[in-house]
Amino acid sequence: MAANTFGEIFRLTTFGESHGKGIGGVIDGCPPNLEIDISLIQKELNRRRPGQSHLTSPRNEADEVQLLSGVFEGKSTGAPIAFFVPNTDQRSKDYSHIQHTFRPSHADFTYQKKYGTRDYRGGGRSSARETIARVVGGSIAKIFLKSIGIEVHAFVQQIGEIKLLKPIEEIDFSKVEQSIVRCPDTETTQKMQLLIEEMQQKGDTLGGVISCVVKGVPPGLGAPVFDKFHADLAKAMLSINAVKGFDYGSGFEGVSSPGSMQNDRFVNDGGKIKTLTNHSGGIQGGITNGEIVYFRVAFKPVATLMQTQLTVDDAGNEIEIAGKGRHDVCVLPRAVPIVEAMAALTTIDHYLRQKMYHI
Amino acid sequence: MAANTFGEIFRLTTFGESHGKGIGGVIDGCPPNLEIDISLIQKELNRRRPGQSHLTSPRNEADEVQLLSGVFEGKSTGAPIAFFVPNTDQRSKDYSHIQHTFRPSHADFTYQKKYGTRDYRGGGRSSARETIARVVGGSIAKIFLKSIGIEVHAFVQQIGEIKLLKPIEEIDFSKVEQSIVRCPDTETTQKMQLLIEEMQQKGDTLGGVISCVVKGVPPGLGAPVFDKFHADLAKAMLSINAVKGFDYGSGFEGVSSPGSMQNDRFVNDGGKIKTLTNHSGGIQGGITNGEIVYFRVAFKPVATLMQTQLTVDDAGNEIEIAGKGRHDVCVLPRAVPIVEAMAALTTIDHYLRQKMYHI
Amino acid sequence: MAANTFGEIFRLTTFGESHGKGIGGVIDGCPPNLEIDISLIQKELNRRRPGQSHLTSPRNEADEVQLLSGVFEGKSTGAPIAFFVPNTDQRSKDYSHIQHTFRPSHADFTYQKKYGTRDYRGGGRSSARETIARVVGGSIAKIFLKSIGIEVHAFVQQIGEIKLLKPIEEIDFSKVEQSIVRCPDTETTQKMQLLIEEMQQKGDTLGGVISCVVKGVPPGLGAPVFDKFHADLAKAMLSINAVKGFDYGSGFEGVSSPGSMQNDRFVNDGGKIKTLTNHSGGIQGGITNGEIVYFRVAFKPVATLMQTQLTVDDAGNEIEIAGKGRHDVCVLPRAVPIVEAMAALTTIDHYLRQKMYHI
Amino acid sequence: MAANTFGEIFRLTTFGESHGKGIGGVIDGCPPNLEIDISLIQKELNRRRPGQSHLTSPRNEADEVQLLSGVFEGKSTGAPIAFFVPNTDQRSKDYSHIQHTFRPSHADFTYQKKYGTRDYRGGGRSSARETIARVVGGSIAKIFLKSIGIEVHAFVQQIGEIKLLKPIEEIDFSKVEQSIVRCPDTETTQKMQLLIEEMQQKGDTLGGVISCVVKGVPPGLGAPVFDKFHADLAKAMLSINAVKGFDYGSGFEGVSSPGSMQNDRFVNDGGKIKTLTNHSGGIQGGITNGEIVYFRVAFKPVATLMQTQLTVDDAGNEIEIAGKGRHDVCVLPRAVPIVEAMAALTTIDHYLRQKMYHI
Repeated sequence: MAANTFGEIFRLTTFGESHGKGIGGVIDGCPPNLEIDISLIQKELNRRRPGQSHLTSPRNEADEVQLLSGVFEGKSTGAPIAFFVPNTDQRSKDYSHIQHTFRPSHADFTYQKKYGTRDYRGGGRSSARETIARVVGGSIAKIFLKSIGIEVHAFVQQIGEIKLLKPIEEIDFSKVEQSIVRCPDTETTQKMQLLIEEMQQKGDTLGGVISCVVKGVPPGLGAPVFDKFHADLAKAMLSINAVKGFDYGSGFEGVSSPGSMQNDRFVNDGGKIKTLTNHSGGIQGGITNGEIVYFRVAFKPVATLMQTQLTVDDAGNEIEIAGKGRHDVCVLPRAVPIVEAMAALTTIDHYLRQKMYHI
Repeated sequence: MAANTFGEIFRLTTFGESHGKGIGGVIDGCPPNLEIDISLIQKELNRRRPGQSHLTSPRNEADEVQLLSGVFEGKSTGAPIAFFVPNTDQRSKDYSHIQHTFRPSHADFTYQKKYGTRDYRGGGRSSARETIARVVGGSIAKIFLKSIGIEVHAFVQQIGEIKLLKPIEEIDFSKVEQSIVRCPDTETTQKMQLLIEEMQQKGDTLGGVISCVVKGVPPGLGAPVFDKFHADLAKAMLSINAVKGFDYGSGFEGVSSPGSMQNDRFVNDGGKIKTLTNHSGGIQGGITNGEIVYFRVAFKPVATLMQTQLTVDDAGNEIEIAGKGRHDVCVLPRAVPIVEAMAALTTIDHYLRQKMYHI
Repeated sequence: MAANTFGEIFRLTTFGESHGKGIGGVIDGCPPNLEIDISLIQKELNRRRPGQSHLTSPRNEADEVQLLSGVFEGKSTGAPIAFFVPNTDQRSKDYSHIQHTFRPSHADFTYQKKYGTRDYRGGGRSSARETIARVVGGSIAKIFLKSIGIEVHAFVQQIGEIKLLKPIEEIDFSKVEQSIVRCPDTETTQKMQLLIEEMQQKGDTLGGVISCVVKGVPPGLGAPVFDKFHADLAKAMLSINAVKGFDYGSGFEGVSSPGSMQNDRFVNDGGKIKTLTNHSGGIQGGITNGEIVYFRVAFKPVATLMQTQLTVDDAGNEIEIAGKGRHDVCVLPRAVPIVEAMAALTTIDHYLRQKMYHI
Repeated sequence: MAANTFGEIFRLTTFGESHGKGIGGVIDGCPPNLEIDISLIQKELNRRRPGQSHLTSPRNEADEVQLLSGVFEGKSTGAPIAFFVPNTDQRSKDYSHIQHTFRPSHADFTYQKKYGTRDYRGGGRSSARETIARVVGGSIAKIFLKSIGIEVHAFVQQIGEIKLLKPIEEIDFSKVEQSIVRCPDTETTQKMQLLIEEMQQKGDTLGGVISCVVKGVPPGLGAPVFDKFHADLAKAMLSINAVKGFDYGSGFEGVSSPGSMQNDRFVNDGGKIKTLTNHSGGIQGGITNGEIVYFRVAFKPVATLMQTQLTVDDAGNEIEIAGKGRHDVCVLPRAVPIVEAMAALTTIDHYLRQKMYHI
């Protein structure tokens, strides 16, 4: 019943609302003696920060992380690592007009039904600002994973109908950060940028797909039944705001081709057992096999439109809401570090879980 | 670290191997005073049973469930409900030839890496027989859900490249059980059956997609952050053998259309607040909104082929394995009750979790 | 909310009622490749078995354990180990006369209040037969612990007002099994036996104290805040039927003497840091320090008397219940293996938890 | 593996070190719409604050609580309630001399063994300052419990050899706060105060016993097997710094008297079923029966002495440590609100768990 906690051993608990004092979290179970370079955490936060380009929300937040505990003389101690990122651009008044409104495809209505109340300022816990805490937790996970040779990289593969069709093995991940939309291909980036600008004009919004790889994962992570490595990845991804789907390896596309084309043949590659193909996405029977783990995450378009929409208020009266303020047309570029963070959190947790078998 | 347990309040723990004494489970957290009609459990088991048609594995198992505890005078007592389904057709000798073989896209290699050992007889815990315990658990969940007006229905929507394209609202679920492949459309059923028979001839296998709806879910189930209703559904589905993907509502397809076409407008329907469309799949901000919950589950083709395949043994030698025995060409028809079971387990758990808010 | 599960990594879930089909359990998280000698399990069960001497309940049960899963070729596989011990002497009719009775200091009344129902045959889950599953789980834990040099020994230190006053370091544990009451001192054993026989005549019952030591525990097990090693021991012990108290190290007696007499001085014993005294009971700040862990467990007298007692039925009418059948006058001799089992389960769990820190 | 979290539904996670930035926590699972009066929280913190009398540690800390999230317009929202209490009197330099010292009966040695490192400034997580977070969490639990008629009261029953011998039913809890040592008896208070002052002169320290009652608990809370109400209370209490023992009801003393004197006879008290006596301490079979819950908690004397002590450093050299600074001679008066807090946290958790049975 730990609804705000992710993980079994490396456990991230998050707190905070978009229009409260700030967003924070507690990591319980971080291995001791890990060097925590706060600039690496801040770098990841800057990748998800609003206002980083003209394509993103202009909410002006520095999103500076403060460590409150668990780090002593630059290293983790094994104690809980708590952190806090103050909200500095809350502008609560902007939201008073929606106090009684159930915005379409937002969580206003469902919150009211669940809790009998809601923090109507900006979505409360449903705000994407909650993901700040995931990025902080994920960046600490990444520091640990890097120390054991594991890297996590995501990129924008599709926005609206524009897709990058390159196979995953051919992606040059060093190009991701050079792209304003975090798509590692110049031409596709330009098309995506134009599409976003066009939608910005129309007051409409866009969804898309983020692809992610986890490299260097040793074989043996995961579990054969409920806690399959990909089942926990799926939960991690579907827990991100606006995500509607997940698949790994050959995924939804692979269902159409026969087994003879989907099986991954084992070979002996100079003493190391590998697979010739990787339709399995690096996971067989729920357990990693040492190949690259890869998966896709589907994001629906942003629900906040700069258009007039019809809906009802909490008394059931039909009302009209106007598009107001400036919001992200497409969250995918900023969601790349969030996907990476959740993948890192899933991976470190299964890595630590596997340690009990090394007897 | 409860790797063989699903759920927080209604908790199903499963045990048993495909070639051990049997498959069983323990349900901890079933509400007391629930009438447990064992024939309803057996009915669900019969839907996943091998040998139910010429299209499925002929492993001849009655799969009869025995209740070991937790039910007294026909009703649950609040104590753990343990159950056991003996294996009656183990034929362990069939598997001795694969003791040292890493079968392609099976869990042999990853088990060995994880545990340093494996029960090589038929996949151990990775066998689809483990899902017997889920079907038993799910059928008890269904009994409870039915008593509060919630129903779960799944069907085969795609096998190989053959798809049923009907919108979810137009599906007649009463036809599912009349179809040999559990597709509620006569014409598509015929095409699917022909395709399966064709592949049976070739010794090849097929994947596909199962769609599922949960009807009658009250608003308020789920949680806004990690334990979103759809995140737990995703984990539930990806934990089923051979599942490669999950999406809900408009899912992967919806990412291409703009927000103005994806938002679900609220309306006042005679005093009840509803949405005009249901791109959200009945879930907004991770919490159910009272509309129908629906989602899709992608299954890869069966890994066991009736063809010769190249692979390596556990010493790293290249070997050839022959197709042997008779296996399912396509598991989807038998997986329908498994998808329903996991959906029912997810729903009952969130239903019971929500009770703490009714103060 | 896993009310029938003990442990975080080595997790024992128990099921079954005293007058149902039997008692069983599932161990999830047992390390793989552990040799499981079923005769060692049975030996522990025989130590708690009724009818082992004229001082105990004559309920005639063989209490034979069956392993249902998780062991292959004599070794654990990493899969859940399920087991079952059938009830063979149920005699349900004996209990029909108490269907509507709230027996004094039994769980009849509280069950009815909690669940709105109860299995009135012999106490259901509250029966001491539930501890069969703990003894099985604990014996597997003991096998593992023994392989890493950890041993658990308990003995009866007090029955009624008769106490063995020997310091813990002077106890000869090899004498425990030679004593009919499991007290490792001949003279005290005789006094205890006479007292039990005397109470048997009177139809009255006795409580007492069991002491337990865990030897060979490496330093570092436990946690500094909520999951202190002794906090988890306390929960383990208080979860045993009829237990009313727990203390460790100098415990309740130590509260009266000043800090200068309670502190344990560290010394360098040939390169190994040890403490000169062990008032801490082997645990400092919630974490083991390498010294012997020891603690005491208080048991109330058995609630079932062979005397007439006044109480009420479930309609609130005053009624008289007669002493009937033959029951244990004093459960302590049979509770020794139960205390050991719960100590072993606590220790193995913390041992496995500590493995994540060995990086 | 949530080593810094207490509770299943009302979950308190604590963080912070005695000489870091402060102490804080996150409560996940607080029911929504609860009025959170911050002055009630502060009042409880003031009861455990150092420097509240000349008998306590003079560490000068205001211990002011800040709420960071989860409360909106004065009420809980159902979102996590995070809070922080800054450390304002850290004086880290005081501790540099003990960087390499293993203080007797402190956690220095065991921390080093567990984590391979430690925050040597004042004990890190083992400092009693961590209990600030428990008092905050407990005070919010108390607000909820009060709204449903449940009250928690503790008092100092024994310091050193001085005991208050009054039966629990005769205690006037309104007198607790009038006593400088929180003992609700004027004469005993005077004796205890004199004893503390005497030990202060000697540079020695004192332990003792705190008794606690929980009144107004409805029948039905708890569980029959591992999660017995008293087992969770025991874990809660043993998780408090310096606690060495726990018993409830007639406890350790009750083991000497026969069952006929320990059973609690049920009677019909004007339509309500009650027990005539309460040796059971309000709990039967692990489940509350509606009577007053009461228990005792044993505290060892403070380990920090104002005397010279011999010990070793982390290189194994024998060293002498001097008594330095001013510390509590006896923590019991300040521990009263901590015991109450942990009792309140245990009770609210079981109360919320029980809600799932109200169908």
